[in-house]
Amino acid sequence: MSNRLSSKEDYEKLLDSYDTWLFDCDGVLWRGDHLIEGVVEVLDILRRRNKKIVFVTNNATKSRKSYKTKFDQLGVESHVDEIYGSAYAAAVYLSSVVKIPKTKKVYVIGQGGLEEELRDEGVNFIGGTDPADNTLAPFSLGDFVLDPDVAAVVCGLDTQINYTKLSKAFQYLTRNPDCLFIATNEDSTYPSAHGLLPGAGSISAPLRFSLGRSPVCTGKPSNTMLDCVKAKLVTSFPAAMNDSINDRG
Amino acid sequence: MSNRLSSKEDYEKLLDSYDTWLFDCDGVLWRGDHLIEGVVEVLDILRRRNKKIVFVTNNATKSRKSYKTKFDQLGVESHVDEIYGSAYAAAVYLSSVVKIPKTKKVYVIGQGGLEEELRDEGVNFIGGTDPADNTLAPFSLGDFVLDPDVAAVVCGLDTQINYTKLSKAFQYLTRNPDCLFIATNEDSTYPSAHGLLPGAGSISAPLRFSLGRSPVCTGKPSNTMLDCVKAKLVTSFPAAMNDSINDRG
Repeated sequence: MSNRLSSKEDYEKLLDSYDTWLFDCDGVLWRGDHLIEGVVEVLDILRRRNKKIVFVTNNATKSRKSYKTKFDQLGVESHVDEIYGSAYAAAVYLSSVVKIPKTKKVYVIGQGGLEEELRDEGVNFIGGTDPADNTLAPFSLGDFVLDPDVAAVVCGLDTQINYTKLSKAFQYLTRNPDCLFIATNEDSTYPSAHGLLPGAGSISAPLRFSLGRSPVCTGKPSNTMLDCVKAKLVTSFPAAMNDSINDRG
Repeated sequence: MSNRLSSKEDYEKLLDSYDTWLFDCDGVLWRGDHLIEGVVEVLDILRRRNKKIVFVTNNATKSRKSYKTKFDQLGVESHVDEIYGSAYAAAVYLSSVVKIPKTKKVYVIGQGGLEEELRDEGVNFIGGTDPADNTLAPFSLGDFVLDPDVAAVVCGLDTQINYTKLSKAFQYLTRNPDCLFIATNEDSTYPSAHGLLPGAGSISAPLRFSLGRSPVCTGKPSNTMLDCVKAKLVTSFPAAMNDSINDRG
């Protein structure tokens, strides 16, 4: 249910009601390279009242560190640990929700940003930008050696998608029935500077189809994104979360 | 409804009832490289009674000419015009059902066998095995020039699948609402010598997902395969088809 706010009291009531504020980025903070009016002022009001601010985006090709550059360029104050990309959400989901053992690893279909987030969360991985997997050479299943430590396949937007990556991921997900299948997000399209292109959901689509199985999606609008934000907030700001819980109790 | 045949009369009645006989190949004529018992004898009985024989397969990476080699190796009499691969069905669908104008062309996601069938049916095409499209180099939508003569996208198993092919096909299918979307087949997996790999349906899955649109499928078990067989039989054997129609009238 949405309420239209009109009076100063309405806004004050809203501000008093929530300790943590989540913002989408594209179309909410900015459109392309144009900052939306009032964004800096609103964020400033929230920061002065000691609100927790979280920025959420489904862009999984960039890490939070790379994403912060965009905030900087547009003059929006942000901190890396306030930014939640779907790649980061996937990494946090693995480290803090699934709690993947340090002896295990994930097979990555995705780009450098996803790898950087996994690395920062201490999640071991193979695949991704490994030159051996970024090839159009024929994939020979007879020569493929299954890594028994792969406990999950994580799939994000990957413009280097190819049959070797799909075939390897397919082997991990079919030969080990406990192997987790995770997608950073399932956006059907990706808005490039010159128009729409197939999105992250198109990259995991071959696996969904060949497996007849849906991945856990860590990006918006799934609950997993919120679970990850909560898991990380509890770790980073336990007092804040407790206050928040008490406030609503 | 299936009837169990037991007496010689049952078989005679079956033989008398049909002029044209369609056979699946893998698992019906052979398993891998092993011919199934009785196949040569059954086909011989049908040929001696002047039955039309059609072999149907969803393998779209090979042309009928290449597929005939397999029949020859196993000692099964066959003729190229009796073999119906899903690539051939796609080509016949375009030439004889859609009747695509000679001034138009199709954008191919697929391998040499599909191209050979299109060429044999006189259907112009771009993409496919063109080295420009078989690349993992970044795809730049800003540099992409849409070919206004592309009237269809045809998608088969393509182990050279990549983001450039997907992006180009996506542009043709979104920028021209009349562009046909055709898949040779939608098999989820492909049985390689060493086990299952993602199948042709996995190659068209990114487009189905990003477009929110299903292709016309020319392979089994779609009716399109049968429409193609019928279209070709009418052209090749009009008398046989008329007899067949009269027999059932």
